[in-house]
Amino acid sequence: MIQKSLDDLFDFLRFQSISADPAYADEMRRCAGWLDVKFKGLGFESSVYPTAGHPVVVARSLPRPDRRTVLIYGHYDVQPADPIDLWASPPFEPRIENGIIYARGVADNKGQIMAHILGVEETLKKTGDLPVNVIFLVEGEEETGSPHLEDFLHHHSALLRPDVIVLSDTSMAAPNTPSRTYGLRGILALELWVRSADRDLHSGTFGGAAPNAALSLAKLLGALHDNDFRVQIPGFYDNVLPVQSWEHEEWARLPSPRAAPQGPDRQVSFTGEKGFTYRERIWTRPTAEINGISGGYQGRGSKTVIPGEAFAKLTFRLVPNQTPEEIEEKARAYFASLCPPYLEINITVDHGGMPFFCDPHTKDGMAAQRAVKRSWGSDLVLIRGGGTIAILPTFHRIFGVDIILLGLASPDCNSHAPNENLPLKNVETGVQMNRALLEELAGV
Amino acid sequence: MIQKSLDDLFDFLRFQSISADPAYADEMRRCAGWLDVKFKGLGFESSVYPTAGHPVVVARSLPRPDRRTVLIYGHYDVQPADPIDLWASPPFEPRIENGIIYARGVADNKGQIMAHILGVEETLKKTGDLPVNVIFLVEGEEETGSPHLEDFLHHHSALLRPDVIVLSDTSMAAPNTPSRTYGLRGILALELWVRSADRDLHSGTFGGAAPNAALSLAKLLGALHDNDFRVQIPGFYDNVLPVQSWEHEEWARLPSPRAAPQGPDRQVSFTGEKGFTYRERIWTRPTAEINGISGGYQGRGSKTVIPGEAFAKLTFRLVPNQTPEEIEEKARAYFASLCPPYLEINITVDHGGMPFFCDPHTKDGMAAQRAVKRSWGSDLVLIRGGGTIAILPTFHRIFGVDIILLGLASPDCNSHAPNENLPLKNVETGVQMNRALLEELAGV
Repeated sequence: MIQKSLDDLFDFLRFQSISADPAYADEMRRCAGWLDVKFKGLGFESSVYPTAGHPVVVARSLPRPDRRTVLIYGHYDVQPADPIDLWASPPFEPRIENGIIYARGVADNKGQIMAHILGVEETLKKTGDLPVNVIFLVEGEEETGSPHLEDFLHHHSALLRPDVIVLSDTSMAAPNTPSRTYGLRGILALELWVRSADRDLHSGTFGGAAPNAALSLAKLLGALHDNDFRVQIPGFYDNVLPVQSWEHEEWARLPSPRAAPQGPDRQVSFTGEKGFTYRERIWTRPTAEINGISGGYQGRGSKTVIPGEAFAKLTFRLVPNQTPEEIEEKARAYFASLCPPYLEINITVDHGGMPFFCDPHTKDGMAAQRAVKRSWGSDLVLIRGGGTIAILPTFHRIFGVDIILLGLASPDCNSHAPNENLPLKNVETGVQMNRALLEELAGV
Repeated sequence: MIQKSLDDLFDFLRFQSISADPAYADEMRRCAGWLDVKFKGLGFESSVYPTAGHPVVVARSLPRPDRRTVLIYGHYDVQPADPIDLWASPPFEPRIENGIIYARGVADNKGQIMAHILGVEETLKKTGDLPVNVIFLVEGEEETGSPHLEDFLHHHSALLRPDVIVLSDTSMAAPNTPSRTYGLRGILALELWVRSADRDLHSGTFGGAAPNAALSLAKLLGALHDNDFRVQIPGFYDNVLPVQSWEHEEWARLPSPRAAPQGPDRQVSFTGEKGFTYRERIWTRPTAEINGISGGYQGRGSKTVIPGEAFAKLTFRLVPNQTPEEIEEKARAYFASLCPPYLEINITVDHGGMPFFCDPHTKDGMAAQRAVKRSWGSDLVLIRGGGTIAILPTFHRIFGVDIILLGLASPDCNSHAPNENLPLKNVETGVQMNRALLEELAGV
């Protein structure tokens, strides 16, 4: 990679573009402005669009109607760097050690979107032209759930209308294993609050005759799964799309997953729904998790109190073809059916996001396979992911085109964690992959 | 009640003798000193004994070997007055309204122990002598679990050795229903901590394949009871002393309990172990309660985290002849039997206290019945209580004598709560009851 490109990436990484913290709003604007200048330097028509939150940068090459249009999506915002003291070096002072770049956001998503930008730049330098019309859409609120992007897309859909959408914001299945993520899970986040009395009661005076909100909550939540980790909500699995035989064949080519999650799981005994493999559990099966639970006295020592109320925060990861609305309804019905007469239950929805699924065998999908073979020298593997990118189903709904996710991050890149990193090789190969991809997509 | 006696009670109530808060240590000492002076004024030999915590006051009438010795126990410490703004008048400025005294500690325990002191004073004034040797033992740490009293008793058992022990630190079963509490529940307080991973995990990356500490804890705790509120720990009820027929007969005389708990339970649907009445559930049945539960994210909104650890604080109320050691062992065995291989469990004991039970039909017990009939004009009812006074089994073990609890508080006296109160009549009748009691106990 030439020094100028590396300098560009490092400049980009130095912005403390933390979207979650309002204290960094100016830094967010400066980072968007830097991208705008970068795009204009490529000869693109670029604008920074204000939103109710952080700005969106949209840049387009001079449109030619005889060419296909590729929309490349990414985000310039990053997660907060806390806890700072666990970083081996300052998170916003990028450095390279043993061929690996360390900086907050280098994997998620600055290094990955930069590979796309540099791929376009290199193509322009070498050929003076692009094989397709390119639109970059780089937002600043992905880490806070893209609250204003859908609205932006609706207002600017005519400006953006692509033939295919490309992004790199996921991980490969294993190091040096170029991967297309064609499916992701959706999400439903609920809060379940229960009340058994209008205040806490003394466990000596009333214990044995008064209901206990924390016990009642434990009983409700203990009934979420059977001992084989199957979710017990009636109809929960009704709309789960069965895994296709081609998916099983594809995943059989992957290295064993025992080696893959080398990061934050060293002291975990993995377990899960009976009858499914590790990858099937994470990629293809819906879940019901408690993210937090609280009730009664939590301080030091003991307090002989019967909690009058308690709550739990739950998330369900959803798979095609489940919907947040469907699962909300089924969860409400299940908890209502379990609710004893002495207990008041209140369920509120925090947010929901649809699962994502895209047939990877379309003409655009085959073009991506060829581009990967040309750049990485190895075959693309087709994978799903367990996380959620809530904007993808929205892209799908608004534009109705293929969405190609070609993740450049490594499984051990520490996204959202201290010492976030990305191998330099992944950026370099990503640049070549992007060049090849635009060429292949042009010919579809 | 003569003005001088009421002045004494009000002086006693003005001390902010809050044992839990070290800021009031001086006030505690002043309060103990005031009692010491009061006892010396009765011609008692009185001393303030320092402990590792707050001092103990011991006062004794001139001992005569031909008389029985009655040890009267009470405490001069009170609960904190928080939340102050819920009090109709300042908690340490006692006042009388409609025949009811309002002040922090008036019910628990200053008004009750003062009735005993004034009973002795009145007897001395009227007859110049006492029918028994009287020892007052008034401690300053009851509200913090009497951490130094057992040690004190062991060191001073020769000084204290009584023929019978009397205290008033409980409630009557209903207003104007003089009651002897001959049984109380014990307690075992545990903390149950579980760990499924050495850190919280991302629910997208690992959800479905990683165990969830909060879910695991809910499943363990959800298995504490069946749907009829029976505790499912094997052998939990093995040593429960069955209720005797005389107890059922005695309790049948009491007013309906629906009217009794008028305080903090207005919006509670009472429920409990199948096959038992409200009073049986509270007085005679052991319980397993969650006092607090905590795990994962508890802030605003949602966080897609799989908690790596979670904990719950549990208390078991124990009945004769259960012991804290026995129930700890059975609870440990039960949780161990439910613990899946991927989960680490750690159980720690916070504190334990034996249940209390005393045959109320002994000669001393019959003397108490006669004294009550003489002072209240109605028959004593024999009741149990649901709370714990952990020092009583210790008294029993060290001295091996009857312990007579004659509670003067009303069921709606707001002990430990704002607007604590005690009807003046209860103090006045308590003074007469105590006079009669000493006479009756003298003749046993």
